[in-house]
Amino acid sequence: MADAVMFPRVAFVGIGLIGSSMARVLRRDKLAGSIVACARRQETLDACLKLGIADAVTTDPAAAAENADLIVIASPIGTNGDIARAMAPKLKPGAIVTDVGSVKRAVIDAVAPHVPKGVHFVPGHPLAGTEHSGPEAGFAELFQGRWAILTPLIGSDPAAVEKVAAFWRAAGSKLATMDPDHHDRVLAITSHLPHLIAYTIVGTASDLADDLKQEVIQFSASGFRDFTRIAASDPTMWRDIFLNNKDAVLEVLQRFNEDLTALQKAIRRGDGDALHALFARTRAIRRGIIDAKQA
Amino acid sequence: MADAVMFPRVAFVGIGLIGSSMARVLRRDKLAGSIVACARRQETLDACLKLGIADAVTTDPAAAAENADLIVIASPIGTNGDIARAMAPKLKPGAIVTDVGSVKRAVIDAVAPHVPKGVHFVPGHPLAGTEHSGPEAGFAELFQGRWAILTPLIGSDPAAVEKVAAFWRAAGSKLATMDPDHHDRVLAITSHLPHLIAYTIVGTASDLADDLKQEVIQFSASGFRDFTRIAASDPTMWRDIFLNNKDAVLEVLQRFNEDLTALQKAIRRGDGDALHALFARTRAIRRGIIDAKQA
Repeated sequence: MADAVMFPRVAFVGIGLIGSSMARVLRRDKLAGSIVACARRQETLDACLKLGIADAVTTDPAAAAENADLIVIASPIGTNGDIARAMAPKLKPGAIVTDVGSVKRAVIDAVAPHVPKGVHFVPGHPLAGTEHSGPEAGFAELFQGRWAILTPLIGSDPAAVEKVAAFWRAAGSKLATMDPDHHDRVLAITSHLPHLIAYTIVGTASDLADDLKQEVIQFSASGFRDFTRIAASDPTMWRDIFLNNKDAVLEVLQRFNEDLTALQKAIRRGDGDALHALFARTRAIRRGIIDAKQA
Repeated sequence: MADAVMFPRVAFVGIGLIGSSMARVLRRDKLAGSIVACARRQETLDACLKLGIADAVTTDPAAAAENADLIVIASPIGTNGDIARAMAPKLKPGAIVTDVGSVKRAVIDAVAPHVPKGVHFVPGHPLAGTEHSGPEAGFAELFQGRWAILTPLIGSDPAAVEKVAAFWRAAGSKLATMDPDHHDRVLAITSHLPHLIAYTIVGTASDLADDLKQEVIQFSASGFRDFTRIAASDPTMWRDIFLNNKDAVLEVLQRFNEDLTALQKAIRRGDGDALHALFARTRAIRRGIIDAKQA
């Protein structure tokens, strides 16, 4: 008999950029016996079959979860609780449920209560993505060299955590383990606030009078261009992130507002020293990121 | 006799990323007979000689300008008026003075009064740059495919404007002509506000408690990483931009603040519809930029 595959049967509930990229990794490395994809829209499921990243498709999370060894919840965070509730009766003992959400506390609170005894829930979050969405946008190399953060629960089965970690290592990710609440605070500043700001500034631009707007598009210099790329990310996914990491985002947003007000005052007063001091200080953070090889 | 070069003698007053990239274009295309570089710091001048982008160097703007056919002011905006005053007595009739500042009205107001009759001032702004600074950071391809905006004065000599335009075409730039005040409003939103926001958010991060800050650096996801790159730009250059485009920046900052407050309220109230509506809307701007081939 050949070596057993890592996961005889894998189910993706939600299969967009992230889920389909994970499915491609499973296919490439032959880590899954079979893959079933679950999505609400038939169009998404047709795309998965056409792309060859699923062997079977369904719109029913319970049907997808039945007999699966690994279930990946990869849909917008707001749906995760309902999905877990729907799947619960069909989850087989020893199955592993994981997710990929950008917020961990809210997902754990929504999903964990529905996970039956004997089934292992290993919350996860790959720090990877592009501004594109849908299963066609995925690619197996998306996670290469990027962090995958796991936030295991107290009492999580170490063997189950290790199996999820093994998948991410196969995907080329660097692994880290964090407390869920700490994860949410870190991500609020590294990812959620930047997206919120980018959405805001691009929204401000789209309210400009038409003639000015045309020129803003035509002459978008590097700063604004970067923001529009960030602000082109999936709206439903990001709505759910902000609704589910409200406290951490509002806290960091308040600090940001205070700092912005101080800068605004410095500009109004023509206080060049204050401006220069801040602008010089931020270079140090960039150097730290370059040293950490995240640039 | 061989074809006459475009500019027998070119002077750069200030020669960092932009100036040195322009000098490299002049060298590559043999557009200058000789190049003189002027900077305050001997270290910068030594670098120019070592890089072979200047034939002569000086710390005196007047000495640099003497007998020059083209004088490029490429130093932080706040210095431009003093530079113009210092150069004025040495500018020869028929010489062309241009600049590369990200703000046009304030530069024109500071420089134009010092430009003698018979000398042509053609204000310009290449929409190009990187987060690196200094003459070593320059490269001849920096302007390739990027916009160069000229904001000629009423009564500017068309032949002088055309000579500056010819340089930018040689550099590979696309050319546009704009009214200076309009330029400043467009740049306030496409470039100045994004930089201000990036500086703010990175500053907010650098005020975090040390343990959190380390993780922000370690796990900087795409959003924050992009911001740190923007916020690593030259502090003196950006201080001067904000001091000299105060009105346009404060106006657009006020709109931004109103929009951010509305988003903050939507998050606090859990108003998912409002969040989704904004996040979907901003995708249209991104599509416009992709269609305009600025992405």
